[in-house]
Amino acid sequence: MEQYFVDTTIDQDSYILDDKEQFHHIITVLRHQLGDVIYLVDNNTNLFEATLANVVGKTAIFDVKKSDIATTELPIKVTIACALSKKDKVEWITQKSTELGATDIVFFNSQYSVMTWKGNVVDRKLERLQEIAKNAAQQSKRRMIPKVSYLNKFADLTKLDADCKLLAYEESVKNGETSALDRSLTNEIKSVIGVFGSEGGVSPDEVNLLQDAGYTSVGLGPRILRAETAPMYLLSVLSYNYELRMNEE
Amino acid sequence: MEQYFVDTTIDQDSYILDDKEQFHHIITVLRHQLGDVIYLVDNNTNLFEATLANVVGKTAIFDVKKSDIATTELPIKVTIACALSKKDKVEWITQKSTELGATDIVFFNSQYSVMTWKGNVVDRKLERLQEIAKNAAQQSKRRMIPKVSYLNKFADLTKLDADCKLLAYEESVKNGETSALDRSLTNEIKSVIGVFGSEGGVSPDEVNLLQDAGYTSVGLGPRILRAETAPMYLLSVLSYNYELRMNEE
Repeated sequence: MEQYFVDTTIDQDSYILDDKEQFHHIITVLRHQLGDVIYLVDNNTNLFEATLANVVGKTAIFDVKKSDIATTELPIKVTIACALSKKDKVEWITQKSTELGATDIVFFNSQYSVMTWKGNVVDRKLERLQEIAKNAAQQSKRRMIPKVSYLNKFADLTKLDADCKLLAYEESVKNGETSALDRSLTNEIKSVIGVFGSEGGVSPDEVNLLQDAGYTSVGLGPRILRAETAPMYLLSVLSYNYELRMNEE
Repeated sequence: MEQYFVDTTIDQDSYILDDKEQFHHIITVLRHQLGDVIYLVDNNTNLFEATLANVVGKTAIFDVKKSDIATTELPIKVTIACALSKKDKVEWITQKSTELGATDIVFFNSQYSVMTWKGNVVDRKLERLQEIAKNAAQQSKRRMIPKVSYLNKFADLTKLDADCKLLAYEESVKNGETSALDRSLTNEIKSVIGVFGSEGGVSPDEVNLLQDAGYTSVGLGPRILRAETAPMYLLSVLSYNYELRMNEE
């Protein structure tokens, strides 16, 4: 059963859907009939079972009922911050990070970045990535759409706050560092930020800046992961640790 | 420093490289000079520091010295078995599974597969995927190249053996199953096989067949992961569990 995000609070037992794109998809493309049921998620992250009750012009009227299906959101907030890379990688990171439960996705400009976004394209790029995040969130049955943003100044990363601040650092791998990640993932933390360099890594100055801001350098296993693979590793481990392991205790 | 696989055993202090493609890459493309050092991995998974000593015609002669850098291979053997899907997904699964440490990558034909490979294209497809695995293994500094294979008959999956046999099953997610994966990953296991359906999942008959063969259905967190994302989740968790967590004990 497919799911759509609506950007309003559903607080009555009926909902009038008039978003053009959603209407087109539900009624014209998927040809839903009266009585068909879909999911709607409102801007309070609540999930509703919605039964198509009527179609009037270009609006669809649904009978809605709050669902008691458990949330699909990670119990901790996760910000994935990646150095800017090529278009397909950036899009791919956005899609996969959304599937795997990130709350925020940040792309940043760094000394070793292979590219930069000029001021005049940032809005257009972010709009496209936000659309990818929305589609991935719907498909993976998330209750929220991660926010995608861009930091032109590397130092602004230090303004992002989290209980646990991690820097995925290739040198840690080379030095055989193997336990910092696990030591960092305690039961107490409620939010994590992971910073990932581009293929070229982060510069020594940038590493120092982050360490001064309370970041811990962690290795993600002994193999050299590509820039787009490392965030998936972290998100998978966070899900395992906080959604599957913790459950048993 | 880049790394190349050679399909022979290095047992002397010099190595004559005459593979055309590798020679072209090392000497013509990267323009390595006498004295430059690269890594070679032989067919015993040993890593060697190789110093370019001479170039004679289309062969490069290296002085080699066994390296004492710790292995980058997972301490357990992991087979990733995925239902066949579109070309780009299959290639992507091969590349990422290699980076993340899989030992074997198997694609299989299943009832709900969106496609099949006809007999006459299998060899060509596998050759291409094997090349992708080789490149990813070199880039991620693996000590071996995962073997890529294809099973036309779903039932042949039951012939693959492992200490721990897992079926990533979407219904487990929907039923709120959250602890089977962690319970399965004990300290004792030396090999894991993970079976992943295509977007449509696996059929009830196929699930029964695998369960009869000793497979455990596991959920990989509450979000619906795409067919290509689920294997990455498992591999990341295996690395965390057996390379990072175990290390502390």
